[in-house]
Amino acid sequence: MPLTPDQLSEIAQQRGTPRQTLRATAPGMEAHLYLAHPVLDHGFVRVIDYMGDDSAIVQAARVSYGAGTKHVQNDEGLIRYLMRHWHSTPFEMCEVKLHVKLPVFVARQWIRHRTANVNEISGRYSILDREFYIPAPEHLAAQSVVNNQGRGEVLAGEEAARVLDLLKSDANRAYDHYEGMLSQDGQQGLARELARMNLPANIYTQWYWKVDLHNLFHFLRLRADAHAQYEIRVYAEAIAACVKDWVPLAYAAFEDYRMGGVTLSAKAIAVLKRRLAGETVTQETSGMSKGEWREFEGVWG
Amino acid sequence: MPLTPDQLSEIAQQRGTPRQTLRATAPGMEAHLYLAHPVLDHGFVRVIDYMGDDSAIVQAARVSYGAGTKHVQNDEGLIRYLMRHWHSTPFEMCEVKLHVKLPVFVARQWIRHRTANVNEISGRYSILDREFYIPAPEHLAAQSVVNNQGRGEVLAGEEAARVLDLLKSDANRAYDHYEGMLSQDGQQGLARELARMNLPANIYTQWYWKVDLHNLFHFLRLRADAHAQYEIRVYAEAIAACVKDWVPLAYAAFEDYRMGGVTLSAKAIAVLKRRLAGETVTQETSGMSKGEWREFEGVWG
Amino acid sequence: MPLTPDQLSEIAQQRGTPRQTLRATAPGMEAHLYLAHPVLDHGFVRVIDYMGDDSAIVQAARVSYGAGTKHVQNDEGLIRYLMRHWHSTPFEMCEVKLHVKLPVFVARQWIRHRTANVNEISGRYSILDREFYIPAPEHLAAQSVVNNQGRGEVLAGEEAARVLDLLKSDANRAYDHYEGMLSQDGQQGLARELARMNLPANIYTQWYWKVDLHNLFHFLRLRADAHAQYEIRVYAEAIAACVKDWVPLAYAAFEDYRMGGVTLSAKAIAVLKRRLAGETVTQETSGMSKGEWREFEGVWG
Amino acid sequence: MPLTPDQLSEIAQQRGTPRQTLRATAPGMEAHLYLAHPVLDHGFVRVIDYMGDDSAIVQAARVSYGAGTKHVQNDEGLIRYLMRHWHSTPFEMCEVKLHVKLPVFVARQWIRHRTANVNEISGRYSILDREFYIPAPEHLAAQSVVNNQGRGEVLAGEEAARVLDLLKSDANRAYDHYEGMLSQDGQQGLARELARMNLPANIYTQWYWKVDLHNLFHFLRLRADAHAQYEIRVYAEAIAACVKDWVPLAYAAFEDYRMGGVTLSAKAIAVLKRRLAGETVTQETSGMSKGEWREFEGVWG
Repeated sequence: MPLTPDQLSEIAQQRGTPRQTLRATAPGMEAHLYLAHPVLDHGFVRVIDYMGDDSAIVQAARVSYGAGTKHVQNDEGLIRYLMRHWHSTPFEMCEVKLHVKLPVFVARQWIRHRTANVNEISGRYSILDREFYIPAPEHLAAQSVVNNQGRGEVLAGEEAARVLDLLKSDANRAYDHYEGMLSQDGQQGLARELARMNLPANIYTQWYWKVDLHNLFHFLRLRADAHAQYEIRVYAEAIAACVKDWVPLAYAAFEDYRMGGVTLSAKAIAVLKRRLAGETVTQETSGMSKGEWREFEGVWG
Repeated sequence: MPLTPDQLSEIAQQRGTPRQTLRATAPGMEAHLYLAHPVLDHGFVRVIDYMGDDSAIVQAARVSYGAGTKHVQNDEGLIRYLMRHWHSTPFEMCEVKLHVKLPVFVARQWIRHRTANVNEISGRYSILDREFYIPAPEHLAAQSVVNNQGRGEVLAGEEAARVLDLLKSDANRAYDHYEGMLSQDGQQGLARELARMNLPANIYTQWYWKVDLHNLFHFLRLRADAHAQYEIRVYAEAIAACVKDWVPLAYAAFEDYRMGGVTLSAKAIAVLKRRLAGETVTQETSGMSKGEWREFEGVWG
Repeated sequence: MPLTPDQLSEIAQQRGTPRQTLRATAPGMEAHLYLAHPVLDHGFVRVIDYMGDDSAIVQAARVSYGAGTKHVQNDEGLIRYLMRHWHSTPFEMCEVKLHVKLPVFVARQWIRHRTANVNEISGRYSILDREFYIPAPEHLAAQSVVNNQGRGEVLAGEEAARVLDLLKSDANRAYDHYEGMLSQDGQQGLARELARMNLPANIYTQWYWKVDLHNLFHFLRLRADAHAQYEIRVYAEAIAACVKDWVPLAYAAFEDYRMGGVTLSAKAIAVLKRRLAGETVTQETSGMSKGEWREFEGVWG
Repeated sequence: MPLTPDQLSEIAQQRGTPRQTLRATAPGMEAHLYLAHPVLDHGFVRVIDYMGDDSAIVQAARVSYGAGTKHVQNDEGLIRYLMRHWHSTPFEMCEVKLHVKLPVFVARQWIRHRTANVNEISGRYSILDREFYIPAPEHLAAQSVVNNQGRGEVLAGEEAARVLDLLKSDANRAYDHYEGMLSQDGQQGLARELARMNLPANIYTQWYWKVDLHNLFHFLRLRADAHAQYEIRVYAEAIAACVKDWVPLAYAAFEDYRMGGVTLSAKAIAVLKRRLAGETVTQETSGMSKGEWREFEGVWG
């Protein structure tokens, strides 16, 4: 349970003081504000603030396209049109700010998305908490034998127990020594900016992360994808659930065109057309490499 | 007068429908929402949405610096500390969305600030309005004789009248021909994306512009500066007046450290130290070029 | 002919002084360096500098994926894999700097690509040249009757002549008055930063534009596309021809996966699968809107 | 010694094969190409590629300012003018690509500079090497008693020995267990993407990092600063030494205006003017907070 009584009481207070505003509001998102959606064993995602809603996307698009958008009769159609044609700027008109608690090795993947604003807790200023990500047994997977960057089967009993024991004991020993090096009890005490180097990559960190909806969709497409590492995917899924309540029309378009869509190469188009014309195409006659063909068959059979 | 009765009625409606929210609100900014602040002869700036307030900056900083910020007793002191030390990320946690109507030659300067989101009316889709910026007589200035990029004295009577007449008649003729080329009355009508090339740079355009507070401060520092062209400076000033009401503590720090501050080179520091020690320093003994010395004397006498 | 004898001689000199370097070189790109590829009536694209080649992409990818990339036997296969899976960062390791001369209305579209570096000639400092884009007769098109942002048929004789005459005479008159307002002959002379507002959007400007290969591909995908306005498309095509000689493997992958590829929505995938199974699907039974169906049929018949 | 014989031989080969190019070259930078400049105990910085030189900055500026720059007689004066007036875009016309080996906790600070391109070795694909940063005794510092984010005195003998022993033994044990969990010898072997979470923040990683000169200067200003953590400062200093040889004029301007310069607030300007007029100003009469006054006195006495 990642939240202290103090934190729960702070959230209750934040949710207990509604204010008046003239800005656009998204009722579905108001329901999420400040609440901690648990992720992994100690992590969470909280919506701290948001700007705009589905109508804000439409409003920005109509500024751009003016009279040209009049014939699209409804907001849903326009939003789907924008998504289909990669008109990304209207989606940038919505913004969200999250408070996230996450393991450092997840944070290191996440931060590669550069078009966002971040304030992370600093190990130079602060002493980090003793909280480490330890995988649940069902997520303790072996190296994939087919994919260099993926996971295979779940580890069997004794090996799993050994791994869990190592992860736990190493993390706790490292933290004991971190505290010991920092201590000013009978010694000078090592600088925080140095002591932190002893901490493993499964320690939890926290940050505020602010991003526009277009870039958030890009993040979700890559990180909620089946090829993403499980430990970042669950964060992406928790965020996606909030986005769905925030901008339901945009999210539906995103699901149809991005999450559920595929990109076909010119070669793949040609193969599909031959198939539609009744021809049987094999990898050898497709012009694709074996890897491409395997991925192609993964979708089309 | 840049607003039509329809627009005024839309603004009144937007301001007449308060909603409840659990988000942070900035009362000083609520007072600006949707209102059109007039700029130049047909332009305006309107605040369409905002995220965060002074407290949001402090909140983000305290996530980063944690216990390390506890000794700074108040928000104002912390915000000034952040501004003084170029800790820019907490300021990025605030965001604002503006609706701006502005001449194209101003838009061309403005768009060079890349870290922002923009949706501009498109001359491919829409027929632009017959509205041109014509300088007021007191802003019709001669080329500066000392500054390659600046203005000198205000033009005298007859020359001023001639210039105003040329600007007005050329703009109107160009627009007449734009309409004439577009017309499908007895002819095919030229494509909008082509006809627009006949329009001069003082025609008005519109956009939604969304930016975080750190990047907005950077914009204001450059564009509200005395060296900026008058026609963009008045937009920067109109925005600055809104920002002052939105985040008064951050704005005060910005005024003290950025707008009112100066950057000294190592050479300039050395000269000031010699002066403080009672020495008389001249350009020749300063190590500065004539240009640098002139700028240095402009501040220090 | 957009180049003066002085410019031609400068180019000859630049091309006549080879130097030694230890950096990666791309012979195909060396052949383009400094040469002006003509675009439109007075514009050009010149390659001024470049960094990296196909091998630089591979090299960066192998740093990321290390031993994981060993099994991909050749550079071409790895580059295709990266492109297919949207692994964009290795493509960012190549960079190109161009000198471009282009009409202002094209520059205004172009600049919307924010992830690039730009230095444009400034109308505050400099007096612009008397050069305007006047469409060739075969590109003088009527407004499309089916597409709000497109072109239809080429204008017929008399209307075309009238349009060309208007474009030419308005541009020249505007420039005459620009010169007249600037003149300090018997008058003060209007400031350059003001006088330029009289110039139409078909006047030529120039800039240095520097961009990484990933963002350049994104630019080319949008601007070399059939839906892009002709006047920017020809610039994209001129650049694409250089890129093809610079990084032939990456360009071939880009052509296959991006320029020649399509993105299918989840709905479109479902329809194609039904078709492959022998079913006849109509718009009514497809779940798509009329607009989507029309676009779908445009590809699949 | 961070390089293997294989790596040394690869570098020798890269440096042994000069090529011809028509591009601008910087002899000072050619001398650095591919060489590994050692940093910390196992790290390095290598220049892999570069684009442009001092002349490229001047060239881009002259495109922007055209005739307006003619009166600045020489390149040095123009470059200093650009730096002094924060005209940053000409500096963006130079680009550099580095190969860096660095501890993870340094990489985590470094990556916060978002306007750069990065390819980092991936712990999902590759097995990381057993190399950890262990501070030299003279850099094993206690927590500062005046600065929440800084270091104080060097640790005394026995405490220092204990800390070094903990850092070494924890790192090696963590790596032993990392290898043990990965091993497929008699067990399935944990996925690499999971096993890496056991590794501490002082393990070394590697990346290719590509950045333009303007953003690199910004990085150097913050990270070569006395307030930066020592372990990133030494990287900044190693890079700065290369930049000085690459673009000597730009680097000299950077040293004078940025590294050696200070920013004064409006309040600080007022205090200095009172001092110059002979007045004695104290913190109480300065209008500054105690913190500001301490920093002010740090520069001005």
